[in-house]
Amino acid sequence: MKKILVLGAGLSSSSLIKYLLDHSDEHNWKVRVGDMSLDIAKKKIDNHKNAEAIEFDVFNEQLRSDEIENADVVISMLPARFHHLVAEKCVEFGKHMVTASYVSKEVKNLDEKAKEKGLLLLNEIGVDPGIDHMSAMKVIDEIKEKGGEMLSFKSSTGGLVAPEFDTNPWNYKFTWNPRNVVVAGQSVAQYIDHGKYKFVPYNQLFKRVEKMTILDAGEFEMYPNRDSLGYRETYGLEDIPTLLRGTLRRPGYCNAWDVFVQIGATDDTYSIGHSEDLTYREFINSFLPYNLKDPVEQKLCDYTGIQMDSEAMKRLQWLGVFEETKIGLPNATPAQILQKLLEEKWALEAEDKDMIVMQHQFDYKLNGKNKRITSSLFVKGKDQVHTAMSITVGIPVAIATKLFLTGIIKQKGVIVPTMKDVYEPVLKELEDYGIVFVEEETDLD
Amino acid sequence: MKKILVLGAGLSSSSLIKYLLDHSDEHNWKVRVGDMSLDIAKKKIDNHKNAEAIEFDVFNEQLRSDEIENADVVISMLPARFHHLVAEKCVEFGKHMVTASYVSKEVKNLDEKAKEKGLLLLNEIGVDPGIDHMSAMKVIDEIKEKGGEMLSFKSSTGGLVAPEFDTNPWNYKFTWNPRNVVVAGQSVAQYIDHGKYKFVPYNQLFKRVEKMTILDAGEFEMYPNRDSLGYRETYGLEDIPTLLRGTLRRPGYCNAWDVFVQIGATDDTYSIGHSEDLTYREFINSFLPYNLKDPVEQKLCDYTGIQMDSEAMKRLQWLGVFEETKIGLPNATPAQILQKLLEEKWALEAEDKDMIVMQHQFDYKLNGKNKRITSSLFVKGKDQVHTAMSITVGIPVAIATKLFLTGIIKQKGVIVPTMKDVYEPVLKELEDYGIVFVEEETDLD
Repeated sequence: MKKILVLGAGLSSSSLIKYLLDHSDEHNWKVRVGDMSLDIAKKKIDNHKNAEAIEFDVFNEQLRSDEIENADVVISMLPARFHHLVAEKCVEFGKHMVTASYVSKEVKNLDEKAKEKGLLLLNEIGVDPGIDHMSAMKVIDEIKEKGGEMLSFKSSTGGLVAPEFDTNPWNYKFTWNPRNVVVAGQSVAQYIDHGKYKFVPYNQLFKRVEKMTILDAGEFEMYPNRDSLGYRETYGLEDIPTLLRGTLRRPGYCNAWDVFVQIGATDDTYSIGHSEDLTYREFINSFLPYNLKDPVEQKLCDYTGIQMDSEAMKRLQWLGVFEETKIGLPNATPAQILQKLLEEKWALEAEDKDMIVMQHQFDYKLNGKNKRITSSLFVKGKDQVHTAMSITVGIPVAIATKLFLTGIIKQKGVIVPTMKDVYEPVLKELEDYGIVFVEEETDLD
Repeated sequence: MKKILVLGAGLSSSSLIKYLLDHSDEHNWKVRVGDMSLDIAKKKIDNHKNAEAIEFDVFNEQLRSDEIENADVVISMLPARFHHLVAEKCVEFGKHMVTASYVSKEVKNLDEKAKEKGLLLLNEIGVDPGIDHMSAMKVIDEIKEKGGEMLSFKSSTGGLVAPEFDTNPWNYKFTWNPRNVVVAGQSVAQYIDHGKYKFVPYNQLFKRVEKMTILDAGEFEMYPNRDSLGYRETYGLEDIPTLLRGTLRRPGYCNAWDVFVQIGATDDTYSIGHSEDLTYREFINSFLPYNLKDPVEQKLCDYTGIQMDSEAMKRLQWLGVFEETKIGLPNATPAQILQKLLEEKWALEAEDKDMIVMQHQFDYKLNGKNKRITSSLFVKGKDQVHTAMSITVGIPVAIATKLFLTGIIKQKGVIVPTMKDVYEPVLKELEDYGIVFVEEETDLD
């Protein structure tokens, strides 16, 4: 019998926990699910005979030690900043760990000790990071194996509302942490283009978009993600002339969102005194120069250079940013105020489903010819529990855990899933869950 | 005999130390000057019989305790972040302190203890902060005394090259810490205008300028300083509808500087790998989208919306940002790279003199009439030691120290010079040093 400890039972753990329980009889697993809220943990295990729910507070060191010591493998779905607290205990007690988050410095530093003890600390095996790594490495390895030379790699992912439920002019609803959406992109984006480093500050980010089509999901635009340069090493593409990672939105979103960026409405570094008494209209006006003669709408257009009858302006009008509604949020940052408004307007409705879209574009040279492979993914959510986000984050974590416990994955140390013996079996099983990449190849010359 | 300990003997201490020594016989003072560099301390006291120079390292706690214990009053001209180390020892040993810097939280917290022990911790008595507080409070108090109601207060200061030595198209040379000039304005500017809060993010700051003329120093433009809102309390203007503080540059400077802001060339938060091998032209290009057909100049104009034949472009050309010169600075941030170039181009020449300009504009209502008082200052440096910056920072510190030691200033606790019994005698003596405000009054109706 193997004991799996899942820490964190939020939305992104739903499909993960279901997978583990569905496979628990076959593999003789006991699944223990811990969460700050015992109710949430209980709901997720739904009285399954192979599962137990516990109240878990990561800052309770005694509890953390006891629970980790009693497990065989720990899956941490806690907020990313807490993983190292779990990882350190895992190494101390000789336990394996799986997470869907980026490797932090603290976790990376445990590599040597983990290897000494023969432990696996597998990270970045959700969707982004996770499925992106695995699906990209599969194609990159194939190109290299047939002797191709990589010229360009562009990769982008988006979590959005599914097309049938896409009912507002932003073509966007929150399917993930709203705060992350509001403050996205506030550190410089770095990438390489034709051998030249490129740096994009926040105030240019939403202007630097590229358009693309993904399968029958339709049209998208991609804005650059923070640090693409580090991926050259991750993907073994140290000499590639072009590498860019991005985030996907529907066409027109970035142009309208940029208005908030330009006026400073996404700033999260200072609080506005008595913000509870302001209206959203006054909030917008607080970023615009004083002038008695023009209405706020006209001032905003003049200030940001958009037209009164533009699509961007229609999106802003629809959000209600010019309305005389009280904000009601005391001493809030601009980002918090904007988030409050967006949470009302961009909420998923009860029947709404989300989607995950991803597209890689690989340009390479083989036998003197330039070719392009496009590899695309389009996954829709099943319902509001097993969302596309929950499935694509949780299922790879679950599959990797199974493959490790059954001896298929043999890696040790602090790793991310870029090795063939990890990504190949995971990608294969992901197909059973509708996570299938569609590859198309074209000649570029 | 009174013992004065001056900590920090850099450029801004020159006029201060000279004043203390010039008055040392009359008041029976011993002046002890400590600096990281004994040579610099020795140079500043120039073998004066009432002075001693010592090597002083603020992190040597024993030395810090010994020196402070032996003094009667300590003048800290150290970098602002070290003042609290001095202030804490002053309170411990029952000594008074004078500084030209903003009151930090740590220093503010010493207020109660200082008052208990009957100590003066006088801060913000340089030029900005310092002369600005005093000269503004004088007029504000006068307006209030005659029953006027304050409607608007705008105040701005600039440290620039004096007109006769103003020889480059930016009309700017470094007369102060270059780093502060490069990263200036990177936190949001906050002010109040006709009763409405206004917030200006960095990417708008250098577009939000107001023009003004100061005496015979000529034309200037002012961009908003970080937090003007806190000055309502400092100046006893809690209900004023308009309050704005700003920084002065020559006309056209902000428009050209904004190009660096827009492309991200002033960012100090990340390093560029192998920056030593890049040219300045490549540095600028790294912020611009890839495109083979246009030269960097054209791409920059298209990206930032300036014209090829604009004044901004002439200023950029003059700086050499498009030249194929190697940067030669390893692993530097964009801000560090820009600073290196500017330090070569904006250096003061041996005979150059600097200037300080300041202007307050007070609008008020009296007997139903709206009036405006403009109070302006224009101070030129004497030479490269007794610069306008050194004089206007150091002389008020020295005068206040004298007035305290001679019993004229009787305040205790952690204060800034907004009280009449402090600013009145200081301003009066400042006139002997050419620091004279010119007041003009006009009717607004």
